[in-house]
Amino acid sequence: MINEDLRALLEAVAGGQITPESALNKLKYFDFEPVSEFARIDHHRALRTGFPEVIWGPGKTPDQIAQIMNTMRQDNPIVMATRIEPDVYHQLDDRLPHLIYYPIARICAIGTPHIRHPGTIGILSAGTADLSVAEEAAITAELSGFHVQRLWDVGVAGIHRLLSNRAVLDQAHVLIVVAGMEGALPSVVAGLVGSPVIAVPTSIGYGASFNGLAPLLTMLNSCAAGIGVVNIDNGFGAAILAGQILRTAQRVISNR
Amino acid sequence: MINEDLRALLEAVAGGQITPESALNKLKYFDFEPVSEFARIDHHRALRTGFPEVIWGPGKTPDQIAQIMNTMRQDNPIVMATRIEPDVYHQLDDRLPHLIYYPIARICAIGTPHIRHPGTIGILSAGTADLSVAEEAAITAELSGFHVQRLWDVGVAGIHRLLSNRAVLDQAHVLIVVAGMEGALPSVVAGLVGSPVIAVPTSIGYGASFNGLAPLLTMLNSCAAGIGVVNIDNGFGAAILAGQILRTAQRVISNR
Amino acid sequence: MINEDLRALLEAVAGGQITPESALNKLKYFDFEPVSEFARIDHHRALRTGFPEVIWGPGKTPDQIAQIMNTMRQDNPIVMATRIEPDVYHQLDDRLPHLIYYPIARICAIGTPHIRHPGTIGILSAGTADLSVAEEAAITAELSGFHVQRLWDVGVAGIHRLLSNRAVLDQAHVLIVVAGMEGALPSVVAGLVGSPVIAVPTSIGYGASFNGLAPLLTMLNSCAAGIGVVNIDNGFGAAILAGQILRTAQRVISNR
Amino acid sequence: MINEDLRALLEAVAGGQITPESALNKLKYFDFEPVSEFARIDHHRALRTGFPEVIWGPGKTPDQIAQIMNTMRQDNPIVMATRIEPDVYHQLDDRLPHLIYYPIARICAIGTPHIRHPGTIGILSAGTADLSVAEEAAITAELSGFHVQRLWDVGVAGIHRLLSNRAVLDQAHVLIVVAGMEGALPSVVAGLVGSPVIAVPTSIGYGASFNGLAPLLTMLNSCAAGIGVVNIDNGFGAAILAGQILRTAQRVISNR
Amino acid sequence: MINEDLRALLEAVAGGQITPESALNKLKYFDFEPVSEFARIDHHRALRTGFPEVIWGPGKTPDQIAQIMNTMRQDNPIVMATRIEPDVYHQLDDRLPHLIYYPIARICAIGTPHIRHPGTIGILSAGTADLSVAEEAAITAELSGFHVQRLWDVGVAGIHRLLSNRAVLDQAHVLIVVAGMEGALPSVVAGLVGSPVIAVPTSIGYGASFNGLAPLLTMLNSCAAGIGVVNIDNGFGAAILAGQILRTAQRVISNR
Amino acid sequence: MINEDLRALLEAVAGGQITPESALNKLKYFDFEPVSEFARIDHHRALRTGFPEVIWGPGKTPDQIAQIMNTMRQDNPIVMATRIEPDVYHQLDDRLPHLIYYPIARICAIGTPHIRHPGTIGILSAGTADLSVAEEAAITAELSGFHVQRLWDVGVAGIHRLLSNRAVLDQAHVLIVVAGMEGALPSVVAGLVGSPVIAVPTSIGYGASFNGLAPLLTMLNSCAAGIGVVNIDNGFGAAILAGQILRTAQRVISNR
Amino acid sequence: MINEDLRALLEAVAGGQITPESALNKLKYFDFEPVSEFARIDHHRALRTGFPEVIWGPGKTPDQIAQIMNTMRQDNPIVMATRIEPDVYHQLDDRLPHLIYYPIARICAIGTPHIRHPGTIGILSAGTADLSVAEEAAITAELSGFHVQRLWDVGVAGIHRLLSNRAVLDQAHVLIVVAGMEGALPSVVAGLVGSPVIAVPTSIGYGASFNGLAPLLTMLNSCAAGIGVVNIDNGFGAAILAGQILRTAQRVISNR
Amino acid sequence: MINEDLRALLEAVAGGQITPESALNKLKYFDFEPVSEFARIDHHRALRTGFPEVIWGPGKTPDQIAQIMNTMRQDNPIVMATRIEPDVYHQLDDRLPHLIYYPIARICAIGTPHIRHPGTIGILSAGTADLSVAEEAAITAELSGFHVQRLWDVGVAGIHRLLSNRAVLDQAHVLIVVAGMEGALPSVVAGLVGSPVIAVPTSIGYGASFNGLAPLLTMLNSCAAGIGVVNIDNGFGAAILAGQILRTAQRVISNR
Repeated sequence: MINEDLRALLEAVAGGQITPESALNKLKYFDFEPVSEFARIDHHRALRTGFPEVIWGPGKTPDQIAQIMNTMRQDNPIVMATRIEPDVYHQLDDRLPHLIYYPIARICAIGTPHIRHPGTIGILSAGTADLSVAEEAAITAELSGFHVQRLWDVGVAGIHRLLSNRAVLDQAHVLIVVAGMEGALPSVVAGLVGSPVIAVPTSIGYGASFNGLAPLLTMLNSCAAGIGVVNIDNGFGAAILAGQILRTAQRVISNR
Repeated sequence: MINEDLRALLEAVAGGQITPESALNKLKYFDFEPVSEFARIDHHRALRTGFPEVIWGPGKTPDQIAQIMNTMRQDNPIVMATRIEPDVYHQLDDRLPHLIYYPIARICAIGTPHIRHPGTIGILSAGTADLSVAEEAAITAELSGFHVQRLWDVGVAGIHRLLSNRAVLDQAHVLIVVAGMEGALPSVVAGLVGSPVIAVPTSIGYGASFNGLAPLLTMLNSCAAGIGVVNIDNGFGAAILAGQILRTAQRVISNR
Repeated sequence: MINEDLRALLEAVAGGQITPESALNKLKYFDFEPVSEFARIDHHRALRTGFPEVIWGPGKTPDQIAQIMNTMRQDNPIVMATRIEPDVYHQLDDRLPHLIYYPIARICAIGTPHIRHPGTIGILSAGTADLSVAEEAAITAELSGFHVQRLWDVGVAGIHRLLSNRAVLDQAHVLIVVAGMEGALPSVVAGLVGSPVIAVPTSIGYGASFNGLAPLLTMLNSCAAGIGVVNIDNGFGAAILAGQILRTAQRVISNR
Repeated sequence: MINEDLRALLEAVAGGQITPESALNKLKYFDFEPVSEFARIDHHRALRTGFPEVIWGPGKTPDQIAQIMNTMRQDNPIVMATRIEPDVYHQLDDRLPHLIYYPIARICAIGTPHIRHPGTIGILSAGTADLSVAEEAAITAELSGFHVQRLWDVGVAGIHRLLSNRAVLDQAHVLIVVAGMEGALPSVVAGLVGSPVIAVPTSIGYGASFNGLAPLLTMLNSCAAGIGVVNIDNGFGAAILAGQILRTAQRVISNR
Repeated sequence: MINEDLRALLEAVAGGQITPESALNKLKYFDFEPVSEFARIDHHRALRTGFPEVIWGPGKTPDQIAQIMNTMRQDNPIVMATRIEPDVYHQLDDRLPHLIYYPIARICAIGTPHIRHPGTIGILSAGTADLSVAEEAAITAELSGFHVQRLWDVGVAGIHRLLSNRAVLDQAHVLIVVAGMEGALPSVVAGLVGSPVIAVPTSIGYGASFNGLAPLLTMLNSCAAGIGVVNIDNGFGAAILAGQILRTAQRVISNR
Repeated sequence: MINEDLRALLEAVAGGQITPESALNKLKYFDFEPVSEFARIDHHRALRTGFPEVIWGPGKTPDQIAQIMNTMRQDNPIVMATRIEPDVYHQLDDRLPHLIYYPIARICAIGTPHIRHPGTIGILSAGTADLSVAEEAAITAELSGFHVQRLWDVGVAGIHRLLSNRAVLDQAHVLIVVAGMEGALPSVVAGLVGSPVIAVPTSIGYGASFNGLAPLLTMLNSCAAGIGVVNIDNGFGAAILAGQILRTAQRVISNR
Repeated sequence: MINEDLRALLEAVAGGQITPESALNKLKYFDFEPVSEFARIDHHRALRTGFPEVIWGPGKTPDQIAQIMNTMRQDNPIVMATRIEPDVYHQLDDRLPHLIYYPIARICAIGTPHIRHPGTIGILSAGTADLSVAEEAAITAELSGFHVQRLWDVGVAGIHRLLSNRAVLDQAHVLIVVAGMEGALPSVVAGLVGSPVIAVPTSIGYGASFNGLAPLLTMLNSCAAGIGVVNIDNGFGAAILAGQILRTAQRVISNR
Repeated sequence: MINEDLRALLEAVAGGQITPESALNKLKYFDFEPVSEFARIDHHRALRTGFPEVIWGPGKTPDQIAQIMNTMRQDNPIVMATRIEPDVYHQLDDRLPHLIYYPIARICAIGTPHIRHPGTIGILSAGTADLSVAEEAAITAELSGFHVQRLWDVGVAGIHRLLSNRAVLDQAHVLIVVAGMEGALPSVVAGLVGSPVIAVPTSIGYGASFNGLAPLLTMLNSCAAGIGVVNIDNGFGAAILAGQILRTAQRVISNR
């Protein structure tokens, strides 16, 4: 039915009944190729938001993930899936050639990343246990074509570790700061730099951490301005936001 | 500037003008000018983060606010205070000449803003009742030298209002989206644009809003990526973050 | 039927067949057929509320479920059980002939549904991961004799997917909208239609979703009116409510 | 600018270039008359959802409310505002002729309601203290043209009060059940009737009521199916939903 | 008495004085005397539960309270209203002769209590600030005809104060223990006595007391068995429960 | 017994057999028999509170449980352990002869109960899934020597089931009411009877039940007075409280 | 002193002056002097815990406070009351000669403090708005005879302010760190020093601070060890704890 | 040591051996030895805070733990890891010679503790189930060189157990009090002693314990002053704090 509409629309363009400009608008908002009954893939998303639609693994069977990845890779140089545990990866690996697995980040991807955007994303983690979330951010950013600089294990209980690496902070154009436990690191970092800071609370902790509620509230209440917070353990979302911040830079300049 | 000072100091050590011992102390400890017993002003902050330290009104007496603003204006072209209720403003007005009051935003400022940074900050509010927070963001951004485009009352319950103003969304380089009640507007906006979105939950609502907890959780759980969330009612923080995003653009380009 | 019984009883009193004393007890106390020690089946329920009593699976052994279903099917054309995991189904299948299993919805039923009520229930899901809950609603509605139209994967982060399917929204007489993550879909839908909207939050999400608390609060605080919310993951309850809404339509008209 | 577009569009209709049908679609989605800088009124909302846009009082000045009501009444036979405290009413009364105040419901309205829809909305309240919310529902429903039957003070601690009024329950086509404290009334009512039940928790209570959280959770967890819950104290929303349920009945029948 | 009425009714059916049809309605539906539109008084309640229906003051106007008290006193020797602030009392005092006010307990009553039930209710309070709740319990119990022994200011931080008054604990047949702050007193008391303990958390405290949530959780989690908890600040409910415990004693014995 | 010991001691002081100094220490410090390093058994507890100390199973190894039960049975006719899962029971069974297991209640006991106290404890459960908690209460009460009457599956969604069993309610001297989901049953029961009601919330439910928080709040906020609430799933604690209520009856009468 | 009394008593038993029976009661039950019906003063408390009992102002009338202070000063060189608002002070001042008021700390005291214990308590506050709580700690410590060193306005958003005052941190023997907003300061401080740190969350903040819940959780989850947390805004409790830490030092040494 | 290094460096500047520029960097930036990519070890930490950096087990692989312990033991006489489950221990045991496992405390250590600090740490636990947390505190304290006195199973429901062991309380210089369930023990203890009390809530309990939230709130709201609270189940943190309290004693005295 939708296909019918599209053919009619394009024939109207060919026949000169409507302009290409208005046809474009119609095209952008109405075309979906059904993978199967369970998911609509949005090929135009990359055009609108600058990133491919990424598959969120939890709650999907390996079969479903493989089917969606296969369909998506036809139109995208890089396709990725997040929150993929090792056993799921092994099942995907049988179905998808050229699949790469980043075990700490728990990301599967097809396609090789290469840096194609200016700017550097600095990624800091407070503790060793926060690494999984921090790497999810790092790999997502790299797969999206950004340059990443990592700085692990610089929690506030040993503030000199952070201070002795101020160069990393000063060189980054946007900072992703990952912390569990009490989540104080973004406040300290935001007080030291002039770049935007994206704070990622993690569920690392115990007791009154309440699965990440504690660092989440810490980051939202930061006395330092210039911090945007994402969901608990959402390294992926932080990387997308960081990428959009760097991409907007190019639009700002080119608009001048 | 700070580097200048430090180099001068160490050269004085090298030249033997001051002893290593006293140099050590000076190196480590920056100097602060005490306003009074109750607040330390940090003149270097503007240099480090790009924005002047702003006075947060609640819990301070009009006398304290006036004293701090007076001290700060000696070194800053623009000085501002937030969360200033009308009756507090009237008491400040007697003590501070040239004070300007923005009643909806509840901001007091000394000094006239002028746009000096490239890029546009689009600010959207979901409902009329969210206006106070949205204006706090708008005035803060304008006082910080950024160009602002406002779009009020475009909540998701009438989605066509938002869609019919897509041009505003497309033109902004960074978007601040202010919403109370269920707080769904940032999700919809982030799905339509490629720019970074800063989501500001407000305490507008009742019952199960729990003073803004509901829209806060909504925004943190957004299925759309590219959203950074700030504290409930924190229009000021959203503006600072938006400003740092636009300022980082210039650094990205100048680094190339 | 109950009225018949009661009138018969009181006429027996009037006719002197039974004493007033024993009549009093019979009048007040209805009769229940004990399945076993662990459950009282309420045969009058279907007459009072229009739907058979349904078995809620969790916390019951396969033996208990099979025993209750067997007893219930003697008086009901269709008997169903919800929240039945595959391994429980396999144990039930050995004990109950003609048992049908709907794996996504996790529903077991005996008896074939056929549409016998006017009106259409539109069921929307925001994401692929919400499918289990959405199908629980759909199968329950179909087993209860209602016509269902499904629309999957139309979350607000790609609002055009929803808008391009407005026909489905306009044709339904009542809408069930299932969403996890931030749960914003019911607000957008309720702003587009004039039909009642039943919102179902799901526990799909992570971090600050707090197992469905986030979309639950979102839906309760919706700025769009005309929304009734059911419990987290309660697809079954949404379908029963939708059915009662369509059944009430017939009563409204027949009362005229 | 929009006006320009509209003129062009309508001239196209007049000239036969486009059909009235498609012009109608264009008209519905693009025209807003700005009251002032602080609110966009949506005249077409009544056409889309069957109810006029209603003004929510809190956070608006009497001046703003009066201005919006004045603009709205030009296109609507009945205009209403909710959550209007007596002192705000007195200020509105000076500015708006023919204003009617319903003090228990805290509603202001211009225009006289008359029943124009078939069906009856039964409204029950558990306690005397819940009356304000129950009346907000009742007056909203009556102003929207529905027939309302009230039943006050029938809480579950004296279950016979409710049982002795079963006739009211049986005659209503949709029930709004308002309860604070433990909020158990909707469960009992939904077990007795076959009509849809809209549950409204109120903030009446103390201690572990946590401002209505207790009855809200009670209603969401009801073991009786067929209940839709609205926000705490949201009598207005319950009435709108009840109205949409009755209005959908007419559509169901006319579609046959 | 009710049984008398019912038997009379059914005998009237047996005797043919009234038809079975109308008997049915009378049997099921009790009769209520409407005070006014806002409250149904339940004269049978005293017979069923042993205590008169008490008026809960908050959310009612002085006029409403006076009207209900006047109607109730016609059938009850003692009528009481709780949570009556001094200014409300002064307005009631003008309308109701012989009204007595207990200012610490914030209770108004008509009628003089006299002890008529065996057994002693011991009431303990942890701190001076919990007195209002403790006195609400004490006055309610005394107005209901029970003997009360008070023991104030025996919090656990000075455990010897409690131990030096063990005689009071040992002599009471049921204990009401009122505590705010951390609410540990009931645990200690229940470990010392063999009588049932009714724990009343109060909202006295600050910070992480969260308006009484802290002592409520403490009491529910007590490692000592034999404790029943009532709502925060609910001295009234504790007294009613204590009274029912003592009254049940008479039934136990008389049943032997 | 303790008094005996104490008097003996002080008489020894009076008689000069022991010095005042050592008497002081003995007076203040009771003696405990150490089972092992991990638990102190309190033989005097039965005398002070009327019930033997019961072993709470979770967090203890089968070895620890067996060792404590063995030590306790030397001084107690009946010894019991709660929250014993079947696999733990099988390990205990090898170590403890004459051990009886109540699988629904998850209780292990040594010794046969016989009714030795007057009065009846009525125990009601709202749903089949609440049975485990209700049976924990029932078995505990029976092991403590009380007569129990069970009434299962009488939830409020089918209120007539409860009403048709009013005889059970009327005959009990104290009622334990167990309910999960919305937990409304105790409110309805307490409105029907004059006996004390002990409400036990269960963790049965899903979504917004939040593991029993919903029924807990319902019960605490009950509009019916005369209800004492115990911890979620605490059938044991409810039985102990019910037993203490019945035992206090004997003290009340014997004191006259 | 107590020991003296006890020995005297037992020697009286040994000498036959008093009977064993009455000695038993005196031994167990300490004596309290009743101020009035509303408060028991515990003169032995100072001896047992080292600090006088302090009056907590909220919920007490000025009359009650004055009466208790008057009774207490007869046995204590310094008597203090906390949380005294200015208007309460003015009423106390009329009744109590030599009363001193510390307005920022909201403390009233009779008697002059002088330092009598070794050691220094360093007190840090993160922001100007936390001053009231920080001063409550400082004045309490000084009135208890300890030396205090204050360091105000050293929040983590400007970490160099803290680092440039490291000397204060290094010289203190115990640190009280007061912080609202995100409450990160104690973590940073505890990472810099080897002294015990007492963390005091304040209710200063807004939105997701939830009245101090955010900094409370931050402090409890600190990744730095050596931190003890007190209640929100509990400056008094922090000072008492700090004092007990310094006093224990003397016991440690004198025990050697 | 650090001061030595710094003075040496500045003297090198004064002597012209290194340039001011490079001196500046060295001064500010400490040196860290990278174990591997995943953890920075901070050798100066022991010097600054008095305790070695301890490895927190959860979220680290046995390989990572072994690698860090091996690196750390080169500079520390005692190295420890917490929250080590038995199966992890067995894997570590293969890799690390001389490893000692404390199974109740779930601690692994290399090196033998010997008491080297004056003072005694008394550790109390309320119930048998709290033992794991209490032993974590005890072993940590002993490994850190402190003398520990244990007192297990002295919960408040049998207050005489605690009172009969007052000697233990009186002899300790600092007390760690571990309690789950209602967590009332620290309040009672703090009322009996003059030493600082460190309260440790545990997650032992069920239902409304909410995984330790209940005892946490109890302890924070204690009416007894002189209590510092640590995170739920944080026996380790309590021991570190207790150790710092005893170590500060020596500084207090040596400063005199």
